[in-house]
Amino acid sequence: MSLLVVGSVALDTIETPYGKKNRIMGGSSIYFSYSASLFGPVNLVSVIGKDFPLEELEFLKARKVDVKGLKMEPGKTFAWCGRYIGDMCKAETISTELNTFGTFNPVIPDKYKKSDYVFLANGSPILQMQVLKQIKPPKLVFADTMNLWINTEKKALLKLISQIDGLILNNDEIKELTGMHHIVAAAKEILKWGPRFLVIKKGEHGALLISKDTFFAIPGYPVEVIRDPTGAGDSFAGGMMGYLAKTNKISTTNIKKALLYGNTVASFTIEDFGLERLKRVSPRKINERYKSLKAMISV
Amino acid sequence: MSLLVVGSVALDTIETPYGKKNRIMGGSSIYFSYSASLFGPVNLVSVIGKDFPLEELEFLKARKVDVKGLKMEPGKTFAWCGRYIGDMCKAETISTELNTFGTFNPVIPDKYKKSDYVFLANGSPILQMQVLKQIKPPKLVFADTMNLWINTEKKALLKLISQIDGLILNNDEIKELTGMHHIVAAAKEILKWGPRFLVIKKGEHGALLISKDTFFAIPGYPVEVIRDPTGAGDSFAGGMMGYLAKTNKISTTNIKKALLYGNTVASFTIEDFGLERLKRVSPRKINERYKSLKAMISV
Repeated sequence: MSLLVVGSVALDTIETPYGKKNRIMGGSSIYFSYSASLFGPVNLVSVIGKDFPLEELEFLKARKVDVKGLKMEPGKTFAWCGRYIGDMCKAETISTELNTFGTFNPVIPDKYKKSDYVFLANGSPILQMQVLKQIKPPKLVFADTMNLWINTEKKALLKLISQIDGLILNNDEIKELTGMHHIVAAAKEILKWGPRFLVIKKGEHGALLISKDTFFAIPGYPVEVIRDPTGAGDSFAGGMMGYLAKTNKISTTNIKKALLYGNTVASFTIEDFGLERLKRVSPRKINERYKSLKAMISV
Repeated sequence: MSLLVVGSVALDTIETPYGKKNRIMGGSSIYFSYSASLFGPVNLVSVIGKDFPLEELEFLKARKVDVKGLKMEPGKTFAWCGRYIGDMCKAETISTELNTFGTFNPVIPDKYKKSDYVFLANGSPILQMQVLKQIKPPKLVFADTMNLWINTEKKALLKLISQIDGLILNNDEIKELTGMHHIVAAAKEILKWGPRFLVIKKGEHGALLISKDTFFAIPGYPVEVIRDPTGAGDSFAGGMMGYLAKTNKISTTNIKKALLYGNTVASFTIEDFGLERLKRVSPRKINERYKSLKAMISV
């Protein structure tokens, strides 16, 4: 089934205890689509600037990521510069230059307007809503967000949340969005606002799927060395949506499996900088690790 | 099979957003034995002072906790006073008066010396070692510890760790004990020091069981309201060891089930102050919630 992602493309400068990389390809839609493409084709809508190294797109095209919706605008590409220290749980942002992404006006190509599965990657909820308005109601729409939008665009965010099937948040975001300390109570509150599914990303502690009648928990895959956590969340979403689009079944059991695939893909992403590890991973390796992860919750 | 616990009995003064309780019965060995007694008889070795309200022991006796190893010494009972605020993840200690527990010299009654299952609750590793020296090697010994002993008695703690089957730690303790940020690497390091099993308590994020060939993760049971987190860790250990002593099978699968039972019991403990919720819980309720918890990791 067709899968569409709308989000950012960035040039990331990243420093971790394992080294430093300058202006490598990143951004939510890139991590998402590269991860989802392990399961099937992906259509990407985003924006880049004139400084973007176009040869990088070849990696995406080779993986059946359709980049016809990627627009080049005058100006520079979104640039993020960050650092991870200590337990590397949280990025310290050194600088953010929105550049062309700051004025991004997503135009969905006609042939993407009937996408079955849609992921609205992290971005302003106003922009996310613009995407929703352009497309025929899909089988499944998931959206991601962040603290910035919870604080600055809450009204628009609540409106968006009322119109999507699933929301992906991390532990801090769910507390901030609801003003509640207790995850379960907070999750139940958000489910009242509209979405059928809530996925809570907890980093090393794994992820939760919460719906009206489901509470499902998976651990983080215990990787030996985390070299760069950048893109973990979008890789997770990409693996999850990629698996769902491939199998085209929105049952609770299938979404549980999709979460396990999401965590599996993300566990590879963080083993090296940027997309390096994902570029080398094979479907066989994905399936092996998926089975290991599943065994970690089997009694 | 026979189960022995050696640890503290305390009179706790606890304040949470849900109220305040003065000098209620608590302490590691109390939460442990009360929880373990949901599965079978428990033998308790500890110390109290002259101020201890002896009628409180009737609750324990009614649950087949043998308190013949509970010694009354001149002076006062160990008294802890603490507060939980916000997300109630961590207790803020207002005061600790060790009193009779500060000079506790555990003497194991002869009839407990051949215990099959032993839990060395949180206490000085020197004291924990004194217990080990008095008993015939049991089928399974688990120990708990805390940051205080990691910082002040590390040498004795490492010696103890080399002589036990299993160690229970929380996320912070494992990092502090090994100086490592990464849980998996830290766990592997500790397994080299002697224990076969490592159990990592992660509060709302559940628990991990790590051995040479096992990595098993369970979520925290999503309780609706947490009124008082005191005793969660010892209730977890009590449920786990109680189930193991009852079933008398030290296989990986059985320890996984024991972890689920441990988390189940702890989830009841935190629903009310002190032992209040545990006093009201029935074996049927335990089994119902155990099944729910197991379903939360079933695909």
